[in-house]
Amino acid sequence: MPVNLTAPDPASLHAVPGITLGIGSAGIKKPGRKDVLVMLLAEGAKVAGVFTRNRFCAAPVQLCRDHLAQATPRALVVNTGNANAGTGLDGRERALKVCDALAAELGAERSQILPFSTGVILEPLPYEKIVAALPGAVANLSPANWADAAEAIMTTDVVSKAASRQVQVAGQTITITGIAKGAGMIHPNMATMLGYVALDAKLAQPLLQALVKHAADRSFNCITIDGDTSTNDSFMLIATGQTGAEISDADSAEYALLRDAVTAVAQTLAQAIVRDGEGATKFMTVQVEGGRDESECKAVGYAIGRSPLVKTAFFASDPNLGRILAAIGYAGIDDLDVDKLDLYLDDVLVATQGGRNPAYREEDGQRVMNKAEILIRVVLNRGPVAATVWTCDFSYDYVKINADYRS
Amino acid sequence: MPVNLTAPDPASLHAVPGITLGIGSAGIKKPGRKDVLVMLLAEGAKVAGVFTRNRFCAAPVQLCRDHLAQATPRALVVNTGNANAGTGLDGRERALKVCDALAAELGAERSQILPFSTGVILEPLPYEKIVAALPGAVANLSPANWADAAEAIMTTDVVSKAASRQVQVAGQTITITGIAKGAGMIHPNMATMLGYVALDAKLAQPLLQALVKHAADRSFNCITIDGDTSTNDSFMLIATGQTGAEISDADSAEYALLRDAVTAVAQTLAQAIVRDGEGATKFMTVQVEGGRDESECKAVGYAIGRSPLVKTAFFASDPNLGRILAAIGYAGIDDLDVDKLDLYLDDVLVATQGGRNPAYREEDGQRVMNKAEILIRVVLNRGPVAATVWTCDFSYDYVKINADYRS
Repeated sequence: MPVNLTAPDPASLHAVPGITLGIGSAGIKKPGRKDVLVMLLAEGAKVAGVFTRNRFCAAPVQLCRDHLAQATPRALVVNTGNANAGTGLDGRERALKVCDALAAELGAERSQILPFSTGVILEPLPYEKIVAALPGAVANLSPANWADAAEAIMTTDVVSKAASRQVQVAGQTITITGIAKGAGMIHPNMATMLGYVALDAKLAQPLLQALVKHAADRSFNCITIDGDTSTNDSFMLIATGQTGAEISDADSAEYALLRDAVTAVAQTLAQAIVRDGEGATKFMTVQVEGGRDESECKAVGYAIGRSPLVKTAFFASDPNLGRILAAIGYAGIDDLDVDKLDLYLDDVLVATQGGRNPAYREEDGQRVMNKAEILIRVVLNRGPVAATVWTCDFSYDYVKINADYRS
Repeated sequence: MPVNLTAPDPASLHAVPGITLGIGSAGIKKPGRKDVLVMLLAEGAKVAGVFTRNRFCAAPVQLCRDHLAQATPRALVVNTGNANAGTGLDGRERALKVCDALAAELGAERSQILPFSTGVILEPLPYEKIVAALPGAVANLSPANWADAAEAIMTTDVVSKAASRQVQVAGQTITITGIAKGAGMIHPNMATMLGYVALDAKLAQPLLQALVKHAADRSFNCITIDGDTSTNDSFMLIATGQTGAEISDADSAEYALLRDAVTAVAQTLAQAIVRDGEGATKFMTVQVEGGRDESECKAVGYAIGRSPLVKTAFFASDPNLGRILAAIGYAGIDDLDVDKLDLYLDDVLVATQGGRNPAYREEDGQRVMNKAEILIRVVLNRGPVAATVWTCDFSYDYVKINADYRS
């Protein structure tokens, strides 16, 4: 069961002027299931994205990149149930069929459509089913459909994921609302996750691109569930430009306010993915401090966060914390002086100067391990930098879900 | 249950002239359990080793390195039940207590003793118990004890691991016999594994050092169970020098014969560790061909071999083979052209030119997935190099074993 996560209250999700959402049912995996989402953008909206670095990136990811470079997007289309990855040239042709059909439906160009797919890899995209579902999705378009949209993009997710907030910038209320999906194949540089955040401010394209990267690096690029980076991960940021003056100065207070609000929404969504990690029973924040640079802090955080031995110990609430030290030791910092290192579990000092804290008592570790949300704090004592990674435990249900996924 | 692996027949394990083995019972974790092993070397024996690269390497690993540099070893001592890792300066002092006691027992110097520990991390070594068990282990010393020795070093291993062969070199019979342990926390550069191989030839020290690295790189450094590199991994090669003339020429036919025989013994032991991988039900050979260099081939092999999604699919015998493509894609080859890539499962061509093979039928994939031993063959088509990684699947029992390990 997801860790302290429930589906969003639809009433809490503010509409974003300039964007409407329509849900369709293509029956890709199961008849009647909501599995297609269309997001229609008003004229003047800008879109920026970051994508998986997996070399086997899916056909829609390749097309998204191309289309973003060629034209101003009018709509995004997402299907679940099939990732259209590992499908070669044929996969790109099938994705283009979907783009063409939606372009015709909306009176737009093919290159104004951004396609996204998530689901099983290496199987041909049943584009005819998606094309057939598009008129229904377009007929369903409404600014109030964020909660339904969050449901329509779920795969192995147990609960849908959405977040929304409003922020006052230069006397104007700016609305930021987003949805995401993902529960497995989750690792840095995103995963089988899709994230869409829209806001109604006006942003210059370069600033929007910088903002999506800023937010991703502090949210979706800080999570791991199983260490598997997927072929389809995409995080898109849409600025509809319906509200207020254009923000174009990266050093302005206005931008800082907006940037932090967007990052907070992205973090809520990213953490929701971990809370809903396949089989998760615990949510762990791995905070690595005292590093020389962010990259080594993240390397330590990820070594801990993806270690099956660490994750099974947390599942069992077993304070077998030497496994955390072992993971730190193989994180790849060649000149790490372990004799300077401290390890805390919440407020409990477990290890100091590389060895067991003489005052550490197992019952203190046990008390923390019994909790559903746990802070693992590593102090490297070799520099001024810190970084955070969010992860979950590894349970029988992870194996069950992934052994049964296709059946 | 281990995959096609049974305990060695004691009669198949040839004694190695110049080495005797004695087993003791210190009751470290359980009363009465064989948990201490002493290996006594004849005068003139040479020892070379490779050790974990984990920065949190255990106290005995640090001492082993020091002692090897200082003196000619007379004996090795191994305990299970406690890794003496993450124990700082106090851990080194406790390990030295064991060395001192064994040195006194044998009339040797402290620096002539090589200590090894395996078991739980972050707990103080109960050295008094080990010291008390040493006289019994020494009294038990015999050249015929290889099978008992293999049992004495087990932790979560289900079956003991040993291998032996004889090879004719320049008209002389050279005997090679080895033991190993390990089942979890297994990843390149070894893991919570210990391996000891002895032979009775005479080898110059530099050649012995080159040989242990050669063998390790083709055996223990080609396996992964869970991606966790442990703090205690050590692989030791002992040349007792009781047989024949000294081999000192790395380019000689004699050396090549011996090298290949030692490597074969090490491979048998390394594969035994994977076959006995925690919860393993399948044994997979990942063969990566057509790479530019060995490092990129191994990176692809390890990405596949450690992916929880790939491993759970194999556990389920589910030919969800897109997960293999996803793992290849994130293996870190930045300029990989996936459109050139072929993927085989045994003899079945699953994907070609980066997409599904049009002639591939799921029943062919299913037929291979149902087997207990499977070849995953990746052809990168970008160079002349190949490399192999051995791994196992990921089952409910992996979680069970590691959630329950300490209780």
